[in-house]
Amino acid sequence: MSTVLLTGFEPFAGDAVNPSWDAVGLVDLPGVSVVKQLLPCVFDESLVVLRQAVLAHNPSVVIAVGLAGGRDVITPERVAINLSDARIPDNSGRSPIDEPIVDGGPAAYFTGLPIKAAVAAMRTAGIPAAVSYSAGTFVCNHVFYGLMHLIATTAPHIRGGFVHVPYSAEMTASAGASRPSLPLHTIADGLAAFTLACLQTSDDLAVAEGTLH
Amino acid sequence: MSTVLLTGFEPFAGDAVNPSWDAVGLVDLPGVSVVKQLLPCVFDESLVVLRQAVLAHNPSVVIAVGLAGGRDVITPERVAINLSDARIPDNSGRSPIDEPIVDGGPAAYFTGLPIKAAVAAMRTAGIPAAVSYSAGTFVCNHVFYGLMHLIATTAPHIRGGFVHVPYSAEMTASAGASRPSLPLHTIADGLAAFTLACLQTSDDLAVAEGTLH
Amino acid sequence: MSTVLLTGFEPFAGDAVNPSWDAVGLVDLPGVSVVKQLLPCVFDESLVVLRQAVLAHNPSVVIAVGLAGGRDVITPERVAINLSDARIPDNSGRSPIDEPIVDGGPAAYFTGLPIKAAVAAMRTAGIPAAVSYSAGTFVCNHVFYGLMHLIATTAPHIRGGFVHVPYSAEMTASAGASRPSLPLHTIADGLAAFTLACLQTSDDLAVAEGTLH
Amino acid sequence: MSTVLLTGFEPFAGDAVNPSWDAVGLVDLPGVSVVKQLLPCVFDESLVVLRQAVLAHNPSVVIAVGLAGGRDVITPERVAINLSDARIPDNSGRSPIDEPIVDGGPAAYFTGLPIKAAVAAMRTAGIPAAVSYSAGTFVCNHVFYGLMHLIATTAPHIRGGFVHVPYSAEMTASAGASRPSLPLHTIADGLAAFTLACLQTSDDLAVAEGTLH
Repeated sequence: MSTVLLTGFEPFAGDAVNPSWDAVGLVDLPGVSVVKQLLPCVFDESLVVLRQAVLAHNPSVVIAVGLAGGRDVITPERVAINLSDARIPDNSGRSPIDEPIVDGGPAAYFTGLPIKAAVAAMRTAGIPAAVSYSAGTFVCNHVFYGLMHLIATTAPHIRGGFVHVPYSAEMTASAGASRPSLPLHTIADGLAAFTLACLQTSDDLAVAEGTLH
Repeated sequence: MSTVLLTGFEPFAGDAVNPSWDAVGLVDLPGVSVVKQLLPCVFDESLVVLRQAVLAHNPSVVIAVGLAGGRDVITPERVAINLSDARIPDNSGRSPIDEPIVDGGPAAYFTGLPIKAAVAAMRTAGIPAAVSYSAGTFVCNHVFYGLMHLIATTAPHIRGGFVHVPYSAEMTASAGASRPSLPLHTIADGLAAFTLACLQTSDDLAVAEGTLH
Repeated sequence: MSTVLLTGFEPFAGDAVNPSWDAVGLVDLPGVSVVKQLLPCVFDESLVVLRQAVLAHNPSVVIAVGLAGGRDVITPERVAINLSDARIPDNSGRSPIDEPIVDGGPAAYFTGLPIKAAVAAMRTAGIPAAVSYSAGTFVCNHVFYGLMHLIATTAPHIRGGFVHVPYSAEMTASAGASRPSLPLHTIADGLAAFTLACLQTSDDLAVAEGTLH
Repeated sequence: MSTVLLTGFEPFAGDAVNPSWDAVGLVDLPGVSVVKQLLPCVFDESLVVLRQAVLAHNPSVVIAVGLAGGRDVITPERVAINLSDARIPDNSGRSPIDEPIVDGGPAAYFTGLPIKAAVAAMRTAGIPAAVSYSAGTFVCNHVFYGLMHLIATTAPHIRGGFVHVPYSAEMTASAGASRPSLPLHTIADGLAAFTLACLQTSDDLAVAEGTLH
């Protein structure tokens, strides 16, 4: 049976929780071997932990998940860029500016996952989703780019990619805030549908999911 | 046992569904007598149907629910204004402009429900909510004002008010859209928590829930 | 010649400037007698200063202007409500909750200005504008309600109302922020067009400017 | 004297105007040789026209400008990706899906312009601006990628890049809409400040302008 590695992040930016990890914790896929790994919200260490998990479990699919607070829906990322530019410090206090993630690496990697089919699967399950074309320049993009570089250079049989999730409704309620969010179990159901679609799809759908800007 | 009347609206503006009615349909409150009534999205007829339901069931609490597409969270309304100004036609094709809802009625009514306690109860249940200070100038505000006027003039023992709900996640997924929304059952759970709080609270909480503008 | 009283607010909420007052300062209307008055961002004192200015200048039109940070366009307000509910302290440190502005006053007053004609005039001048149906529950609404109550009870010959303006582009640039804003002189040009339309319009336009929610 | 080539787009998506071209038309830089070129909003033809303009004028700096309707501020783009995915047809009716812009080209190019210094210069001039990390997947990104590929492969002495601008306030007013926008002359002043900064800056500022997601 093929193994899927799902990663989520620890809290950052002063939050008490991170719905990326909490939702990953709720993903339940009977018949699928799912390994879950928490990543530190630290530029270099996150990739060290990710690489160790990939080596330890030899997954066929790796799906890294992170929080994109403020987004309305679940957003699989299409492209990782070779650049870190931190608006806030990571959890170790480091704030790289204009640093490449891999010296001499390509400017970008496209996702290795069938994200259009996966978006369609989430929508069919009643869970709002859309393709995103920027994973930012913080630790999420760092992990995404590092994962794709690891795959490209050492493990091309692995299919990997990144998914951003909105704030959880529970966090929004607890903060007394008015902002877009989805319940944790809805996010988890979305990640489950996403994962299954990745396992079941060889060639991605050729449907329009672009953005005007 | 006291009776609660919950109303929701039929679809409008070209939508196939209206989450206000669908969520009301899912509200389940063991031990509470809940009557549910669909309202047409038509200026005058909506109030005719509402009045009939109030007469027929003699509820102690009336909670009218409507869709506020684009809002992030569940928003109990604090104030109804004596004005209709339709940006789009109602479902009968009528588009009143600058019309009072009740000729000679007061400019506004404040809600009769303990909405701050109810917002707190929804948040405690993990469901994001916030007080709103405008119910708009379409059929929702019309029903809200008409309800409060009915109560003020004929049934002051009834406690009544209005709650706006966001798009459902299911509608957003089906539309392939990227916009704020909550799953239908989350909205229903929010309405249940709201209803219970109304039944259990005599004096509303005195906490800040205002807006700067 | 008839006199117009324009008021703006001092900075609040930690801002160094308030574009409502800065834009009022730039309004230039040849042939019109314009008196400009700064208001403190303090619940009761703001109305004391406003009343003194009205008494001193005997204006035929009073237009109070305030900042609605985050709004996209210039928004004349249609309705003032008899309620203060402060999310943050005013500049004197006071945070009223659930307080009426005038004990025993009506729940709301509608604006006395031809705001639909004024919105049309701003748009014709190339300046984006829209009618708003909530002035919030902070000092802006307090001044708006107090002004309308003053007019209703002591000076019914005065036409008065309130206009919210967005952040200035200059504030947004200085903050390094990404948020909606308009240049100060554009806001001032909008207020000038608004003022002229109020002077030149007796009966407001009967066009749809409502909101669905 | 060195020459700067500024391009803007023709209207698309049913708009009557395109503020990118209208603002370029207003840019006035005494002492700088500025050439202005209109581009069709057509995938391949836009690059044909751009290449001809580059060949004809031999500019030292090329700044392509496009509309990003809905954005709050002027947004220089940091990265172009080798992908077209059209949500709507271009002006010739073509809607490429998942097509590379250059077969075998790199996945992405970073801008060749000192956009952080240019953002700082715009802010100093009171014009709101921020770095963007996605130019979308429509004709804007197509032109941006094509420009950077042209420079990389045939004219490495040219510094080139792309800037997205918001809706103009005039378009927003004319549409009666409520959405973020800036006056055309403010956009033009921003582009002028941007251009000057590009001419005067050799090494870009090393300041944080990243995004969390």
